[in-house]
Amino acid sequence: MKVVIAGGGFGGLRLARKLNNKKGIEVLLVDRFNYHQFQPLFYQVATAGLDASNISFPLRKVFQKSTNVRLRMADIRKVDVARKVLVTDIGEIGYDKLVIATGAGTNFFGNKELESNAFSMKSTVEALQIRHRLMENLEQATVEKDPLEIERLMNIVVVGGGPTGVELSGAIAEMRNYVLPKDYPELDFSKMNIYLLEGFGKILGAMSEKSSAQALTYLKRLGVTVLTDTQVAGYDGKILTNKDGSKIQAATVLWAAGIKGQIPEGITDVQPVRGNRLPVNKFNELEPYKDIYAIGDVASMVTESYPNGHPQVAPVAMQQADTLAKNLLAGASGRQLTAFSYKDKGSMATVGRNLAVVDIPKPNVHFGGFLAWMVWMALHLMLILGVKNRLFVFLNWVYNYVTYDQSLRLIFREFHRSGTTGRVPPAG
Amino acid sequence: MKVVIAGGGFGGLRLARKLNNKKGIEVLLVDRFNYHQFQPLFYQVATAGLDASNISFPLRKVFQKSTNVRLRMADIRKVDVARKVLVTDIGEIGYDKLVIATGAGTNFFGNKELESNAFSMKSTVEALQIRHRLMENLEQATVEKDPLEIERLMNIVVVGGGPTGVELSGAIAEMRNYVLPKDYPELDFSKMNIYLLEGFGKILGAMSEKSSAQALTYLKRLGVTVLTDTQVAGYDGKILTNKDGSKIQAATVLWAAGIKGQIPEGITDVQPVRGNRLPVNKFNELEPYKDIYAIGDVASMVTESYPNGHPQVAPVAMQQADTLAKNLLAGASGRQLTAFSYKDKGSMATVGRNLAVVDIPKPNVHFGGFLAWMVWMALHLMLILGVKNRLFVFLNWVYNYVTYDQSLRLIFREFHRSGTTGRVPPAG
Repeated sequence: MKVVIAGGGFGGLRLARKLNNKKGIEVLLVDRFNYHQFQPLFYQVATAGLDASNISFPLRKVFQKSTNVRLRMADIRKVDVARKVLVTDIGEIGYDKLVIATGAGTNFFGNKELESNAFSMKSTVEALQIRHRLMENLEQATVEKDPLEIERLMNIVVVGGGPTGVELSGAIAEMRNYVLPKDYPELDFSKMNIYLLEGFGKILGAMSEKSSAQALTYLKRLGVTVLTDTQVAGYDGKILTNKDGSKIQAATVLWAAGIKGQIPEGITDVQPVRGNRLPVNKFNELEPYKDIYAIGDVASMVTESYPNGHPQVAPVAMQQADTLAKNLLAGASGRQLTAFSYKDKGSMATVGRNLAVVDIPKPNVHFGGFLAWMVWMALHLMLILGVKNRLFVFLNWVYNYVTYDQSLRLIFREFHRSGTTGRVPPAG
Repeated sequence: MKVVIAGGGFGGLRLARKLNNKKGIEVLLVDRFNYHQFQPLFYQVATAGLDASNISFPLRKVFQKSTNVRLRMADIRKVDVARKVLVTDIGEIGYDKLVIATGAGTNFFGNKELESNAFSMKSTVEALQIRHRLMENLEQATVEKDPLEIERLMNIVVVGGGPTGVELSGAIAEMRNYVLPKDYPELDFSKMNIYLLEGFGKILGAMSEKSSAQALTYLKRLGVTVLTDTQVAGYDGKILTNKDGSKIQAATVLWAAGIKGQIPEGITDVQPVRGNRLPVNKFNELEPYKDIYAIGDVASMVTESYPNGHPQVAPVAMQQADTLAKNLLAGASGRQLTAFSYKDKGSMATVGRNLAVVDIPKPNVHFGGFLAWMVWMALHLMLILGVKNRLFVFLNWVYNYVTYDQSLRLIFREFHRSGTTGRVPPAG
């Protein structure tokens, strides 16, 4: 049986590992990158606290000793369900069973202007692009004469008060508070405003009231201007306009206000539900098809406890991968299938040094501050793939903590190959 | 007095540090990147042994506490000597004294075909581009059917038998010997050929006979095909043709066969000498001008011991910076100037694990093997800027040595901003 897994994120990679070296199953894992990305720490790559490589793990390394898992780096174009073929930019890949684990991308809700002017952060490379933009804007501000333009170059708007928006705006505020004034003595950082915009009434809406309120206190302490009940209408690259008509001058807008499932073309017998997710049954099967499954952020499984589908977080994807692996093996040998059941172990978000919030559902516990921050760090270190990555993330954190410095303020922008001399002055 | 330093390499950075916090001197350091690059380890970035950040140091961090050194990230376009202005992409920069420390770029000796098809490695970003190309070619080889094309994708030609070519070909051979077969079980690495081409009769021509011969032995041991007296005529991106008519199939050609001084336009009263270097007197002055200096790779100072100018290596640039700093300070207070005198402490090259060669001129000593390799590592660790970089390079080396693994096999290619979803499949 040939199982093709589309996507090497938390769900897809976990599934491939669970099927690793199992007899009678051939696995092909397809991803557009040659590494697994640890999404929860994208924001630290964007804010120069971690190296991109620290949170990336080469997929081929995971399966070096595998007898049955093979890898392909490819763009998924569509699924040809009739011929049981995944169409990619490197050719067609036949399957007996297809698992769609393509995750979620950024949702700009159809606003083309926002899409072309705001930054999203759904990949390591996008996180690097944000880092480069932040640095380049400050360089530009040092040579700019117009005070309004300087303000615009320094200001940063983060849209979306979920964990990503909270973590990102907190980390940027810490850079402004501790690092940037030392790097740019010619700039007045009291004029750099960091906004966090949330469309609804409170930030961290999926967490407890206590966590939400505490995170707000922390953000204010760091000097982030949090605007709730504020919905963005448009952004032309210079001025952000809210639906209430208010305007913010900012050369950088980071969009963390929505995601949508990334469904390959060709899945025509299933109507996507809210958030562009594929409705699946309790076995993660796409019901009209007998050989296609969806797990993680791209899937929506409606249960009594989760009438709108499970939250789009890593633990759901990983637990679904575990159950599906069991079911694929059981199905192959005619055993009974297990229905998926989500064990919610809690949620957390970090705002800055010594500042984090944690909710644990059973028993109903909330805590914040230094303890929450330590728990957050320990858990993320545990979850990162690879001993070396774990060590390097830990050392970067120790360094950042001790020195109050996010030291990776480097712009590694690739230039076009034919101009290998890049920004070099022309030889005289 | 306003001293403008064009270039933050070994020479330019050293000069700025020597002038740091000196009264009566304002310094502006201009570089196209926002970090200092540690060139000697580019080859380890290219071969996935080190992170780009490990060998890069943010220039602004060096001068955080400086009272007189300011920084600009800019492309140098030309020098307007009449108006005493450096013209850059971010505007004009006036100077009282200008120090040209723009270093050397790749020299393709006018061969446009080579320039557009071969890779050079004169910046961290170019090193990353080589890494990406190596990885992408292997990915492509896994899905290629044509045996000739597979061979072409796997083969690598390094042109130029100097330290860079030797180090690069040795490091690639170690990847092939230890790492790649585990990553790509579907490929036959006995078919991957690594060539090192040298136009003259021996590799490491600037070092002792012993070192040259020993490096050749090491390279052969690692399985590198070394071809001396072999000059490249052309390369169309698929087939490399030598002047003797022989051909090599290779999708990747790395060009380390020549450099040339990067002289900004506008220096019209001085004729560049061999290697496009600016002739300077013993005070590193550009004689027709009274306020322009050149140091390092871009400068050529003819002395009795060095009738063709000094070797284009970091120690020369740094020692010239030291002398020039002294002279700028002396000149400002009417004291006598010091002529530059180069203290050659020796040269070294590394080929692979436990394999390096060292020449020391006084006393005339040569040694190789494990001891040379340890000396090479200790010296490079010492020279790298920043405690954190030093620690991270060291840890990477320990990791690579213990595991026989260069673990950073990651392709972080930026995509065009407007397509923020990049290689993501289109949402259904």
